Amino acid sequence: MDNKNIHAERLAALREKMREHGIDAYMIPTADFHCSEYVAPCFKAREYFSGFTGSAGILIVMQERADLWADGRYFIQAAKEIEGSGITLERIGEPGVPTREQFLKDHLKEGQTFGCDGRCITKAEGAHLARVLGQRGIRMDTSLDLPGMVWADRPALPSHPIWLLPEAFAGESAESKLARLRAVMDEQDTSCYVSSKLDEIMWLLNIRGNDVEANPVALSYLLVTKDAWYLFVQKSECTKEFLDYAAKIHLTVGEYEKFFDFAKDFAFPGNVLLDPNFLSFQVYQTIRENLEKAGKRAEDCVVEVNSPLDYMKAIRNKTEIANFKDIYIEDSAVLTKFIYWLKKNVGKIPMTEGSAAKYLDNLRAQIRDYIELSFGTISAYGPNAAMMHYEPGEDGGAELKPEGMLLVDSGGHYMRGTTDVTRTMSLGPVTEDMRRSYSLTANSNFQLQDVTFLKGSCGMTLDICAREPMWENLMDYKCGTGHGVGNILNVHEGPQSIRYHQRDAADLTPFAPGMTISDEPGVYKAGQYGIRIENILLCVERGTTSDGTFYGFAPLTFAPLDRELLDVNVLTPKVRELINTYHAQVLEKIGPFMNEEELAWLKAECTAL
Amino acid sequence: MDNKNIHAERLAALREKMREHGIDAYMIPTADFHCSEYVAPCFKAREYFSGFTGSAGILIVMQERADLWADGRYFIQAAKEIEGSGITLERIGEPGVPTREQFLKDHLKEGQTFGCDGRCITKAEGAHLARVLGQRGIRMDTSLDLPGMVWADRPALPSHPIWLLPEAFAGESAESKLARLRAVMDEQDTSCYVSSKLDEIMWLLNIRGNDVEANPVALSYLLVTKDAWYLFVQKSECTKEFLDYAAKIHLTVGEYEKFFDFAKDFAFPGNVLLDPNFLSFQVYQTIRENLEKAGKRAEDCVVEVNSPLDYMKAIRNKTEIANFKDIYIEDSAVLTKFIYWLKKNVGKIPMTEGSAAKYLDNLRAQIRDYIELSFGTISAYGPNAAMMHYEPGEDGGAELKPEGMLLVDSGGHYMRGTTDVTRTMSLGPVTEDMRRSYSLTANSNFQLQDVTFLKGSCGMTLDICAREPMWENLMDYKCGTGHGVGNILNVHEGPQSIRYHQRDAADLTPFAPGMTISDEPGVYKAGQYGIRIENILLCVERGTTSDGTFYGFAPLTFAPLDRELLDVNVLTPKVRELINTYHAQVLEKIGPFMNEEELAWLKAECTAL
Repeated sequence: MDNKNIHAERLAALREKMREHGIDAYMIPTADFHCSEYVAPCFKAREYFSGFTGSAGILIVMQERADLWADGRYFIQAAKEIEGSGITLERIGEPGVPTREQFLKDHLKEGQTFGCDGRCITKAEGAHLARVLGQRGIRMDTSLDLPGMVWADRPALPSHPIWLLPEAFAGESAESKLARLRAVMDEQDTSCYVSSKLDEIMWLLNIRGNDVEANPVALSYLLVTKDAWYLFVQKSECTKEFLDYAAKIHLTVGEYEKFFDFAKDFAFPGNVLLDPNFLSFQVYQTIRENLEKAGKRAEDCVVEVNSPLDYMKAIRNKTEIANFKDIYIEDSAVLTKFIYWLKKNVGKIPMTEGSAAKYLDNLRAQIRDYIELSFGTISAYGPNAAMMHYEPGEDGGAELKPEGMLLVDSGGHYMRGTTDVTRTMSLGPVTEDMRRSYSLTANSNFQLQDVTFLKGSCGMTLDICAREPMWENLMDYKCGTGHGVGNILNVHEGPQSIRYHQRDAADLTPFAPGMTISDEPGVYKAGQYGIRIENILLCVERGTTSDGTFYGFAPLTFAPLDRELLDVNVLTPKVRELINTYHAQVLEKIGPFMNEEELAWLKAECTAL
Repeated sequence: MDNKNIHAERLAALREKMREHGIDAYMIPTADFHCSEYVAPCFKAREYFSGFTGSAGILIVMQERADLWADGRYFIQAAKEIEGSGITLERIGEPGVPTREQFLKDHLKEGQTFGCDGRCITKAEGAHLARVLGQRGIRMDTSLDLPGMVWADRPALPSHPIWLLPEAFAGESAESKLARLRAVMDEQDTSCYVSSKLDEIMWLLNIRGNDVEANPVALSYLLVTKDAWYLFVQKSECTKEFLDYAAKIHLTVGEYEKFFDFAKDFAFPGNVLLDPNFLSFQVYQTIRENLEKAGKRAEDCVVEVNSPLDYMKAIRNKTEIANFKDIYIEDSAVLTKFIYWLKKNVGKIPMTEGSAAKYLDNLRAQIRDYIELSFGTISAYGPNAAMMHYEPGEDGGAELKPEGMLLVDSGGHYMRGTTDVTRTMSLGPVTEDMRRSYSLTANSNFQLQDVTFLKGSCGMTLDICAREPMWENLMDYKCGTGHGVGNILNVHEGPQSIRYHQRDAADLTPFAPGMTISDEPGVYKAGQYGIRIENILLCVERGTTSDGTFYGFAPLTFAPLDRELLDVNVLTPKVRELINTYHAQVLEKIGPFMNEEELAWLKAECTAL
């Protein structure tokens, strides 16, 4: 059966279940029970029904139609993957494209029912939908896992042993983190904190798992009170080492599958602190019903904040900073060796996007404390690079020729930290337009890297430093400029981000020294090429005067830009100087890792422009 | 009695009333019943009790202490004005300064009562305080006007005739605006809109009043349903012309004093739309009690949004834009004549900050459709200019000498629109530091004026264009960079603004063509000098490409910068060019208004740098 028919058949089965359960529109987001960005195979229902493999996208199925919402990173890829399926692609943010909310209001009538699995959406989203649909007299049912009913060969829940992150790498004990969390609970006049957010739970407890590919987390729920803390994980994941550790830190371990039963009957001792943008709707509903049973109103005793754990997690401590600096140099050195190999051999030995990526992946795996890749290596040649999150398929993808550009976005998890870096390389002759676009991207990247800003500034304050070189040419890249990078956790983490408009509540989180952030502007021309230059930056203090305290960034990544692609007539005089300074640092820091041949090449690459 | 004793006595009387009514902390904001920025004398209770005359600031009185919160614009002035009163100045945003909320939580105990006049705070503020104090078991009483009980000679409510703004100046009929409002009500599934915000009510109805100095508004409340609209104003303000107009547009006019009785019993036909950041808390409470009486829950049938009227109002229509362009040229010409007169005569004829301001005010009054000043002219010499909102006192203020700098921030209301402009002028020898600061300010001003940005960008996106020249020198100015300018309404209006962090919900409002915004960076050195350069800009479209629609700004203000204060070594090459272009426009647009002598001087001032 071809692709088109597979998805049509699956959608038909889903529609039958919808009719059986009286559901007029059913929403399938890209999320597990923890609203994670990347999810285990058993949670990939959206992909199962639509064929779209991207990391973000939401499907809404009705009897007579199905629509997929995807963001700018995936416009090209999604259109390709759902072609012929009968699903309509809704390009988020484009003129005339309705929001999901507007779509539901337009297509559902009073008395009809909207359904989704409440475990897979956030409290904020669920409450908002319930309100706007409720005003139209549309019912909402969040109790049904319809995909589960028709997905016969659905994979099982992932189950991998939990492992402990030694304090030599975490830099702070779980008990110390717990004390800081309880101080915030106190400040907010609450006596409980509830979380279903996997990375912050791992961070708090100094544990890691392996339940999501490239995201070393364990499926879990957390409940903290003033004198106890509870973790719910799969029994099969609890090693003796972990259970001993839990006992030592007085952590009560419950079974993952029994969390909802526990939350239903738990006697909440006072007000409850939670983050509505992270906590799953179903967890919130369970708490609400619990409180109401006890004669309390959720409006009165639930305090909603941006997650304090998410914020604490984002600020690297001294140990983490030292380790990050260290591993970023080794990781940059490996990338640089790869670039040298690539440029030397392209056109001489057979090479595909996939085989080049594997060469790089193997180099990374040789670093002494390597754990795994932090995401599947993006290796995109020519027009493929216009798809921001393109990955070569099983067949190795496009063949690399000694011309045009290859974009490689890659990174690894190591005991010393998590890396993420993008370089775009010329493989031979390039056009003037490519050089101009690359140089504009360099202007964007370095203007942001160099900025000095007042304490209190957030990513929205800073984004224009990167976008202005694009915007003044009436160009733009359809993605955020920067995301945080977790420490052996999600390679995309918040709360900090760099984008020009608000997407999440957390986007307004001010920068603080110790935060890491990616700086990854680019130029993407559909059908032609894609360019991205990504460094990871560390937020540092620049000084305090009578006017306030000022911060800036210091790069953690030290890999050379592509000399062939830099046009000094397009670079601003300031960026030209900044690149020269940066290249001198690159040579100093990663030079020692190069062999003689590599070093000679690197020296030439790093000569002042 | 000296100042210190007057305020101590008044506070003592207030404290007695607090004891009588069992109020442990009482808050007096700077607001009328409409949460206006500028208020009529009868609402200046905060000034009455503290002596602080600024346009923003909040007093909290307890038995053993009193604290005044003021923002960066007023740190110097407030400290001076409350000196010796025993009131503690809380400098908002400075390290270690508690928020009001934190202060109340720290200083009130369970069982104690916090009080304020619920008519003078917003729904958002009231609800927030009720929640955070409630969690601590602190009561909140918003029914008491304690200042009114001890303020014997309190002025009466202002009462001035309402006047009609002809469509030739409004550019759109009230009925057309009403239809647009109802479309938003519909979109939001609501059937009522309630407002206590004076400028948006005036805008909707194409009427103006005179109840606040320099803010041509009439005290009023508004309620709009799908088939009726109600305005509550003082009977004494209703001219026959206005009542005839009201009848013609089928507007029901009620009495201002009876609005709360009306709202208590009004049968709300469906969901209610309101802006919690503008609507007064007491109005919201009245609606809530009304709904609860009818068996409904406010949570279910009140829809909170950023005010649709405030947004519509901010986008100038074609008529308004044409009129604004026109009046800004005449107003700039008058300012330029003033600058010439000032520079020619300083040191030759006696001059004070006040007399210079009067000279300028008189020039403005001669413009044919002049109505009144849009705010009291700020004329600040030498160190006085470090106080951002300084106004010379009755005695005329400081004497002007042929040295240093004079900062003049001024504007007028005309039938064609409202102006606001700041220039800082050298009156003779200046220091290198002054020239450097002025040139940095010019860099800030012109970088913002020149920026191109993607649709969806708001003031937070753009602010760094103005601040970066300051920040990279570890300097900052303690105020926003830009505010909207009303059309014969408040000279400061939203929702658009330019600041680097979020203060109000409306700060995230994206720019749209037709919006006006001030561009007014500066350098303020306490005890030394103050510099501000302010132009008003119009948001315009720059073009649409496959990457989106791009906007930019065009200046409305055309008055020369001070040549003596511009240092080409501090100006960036780009800003130097931009200033040359701007000066050529200045000469072209306001040259025709100059006499021969003035023109010769202006030509020299506008020669390319």
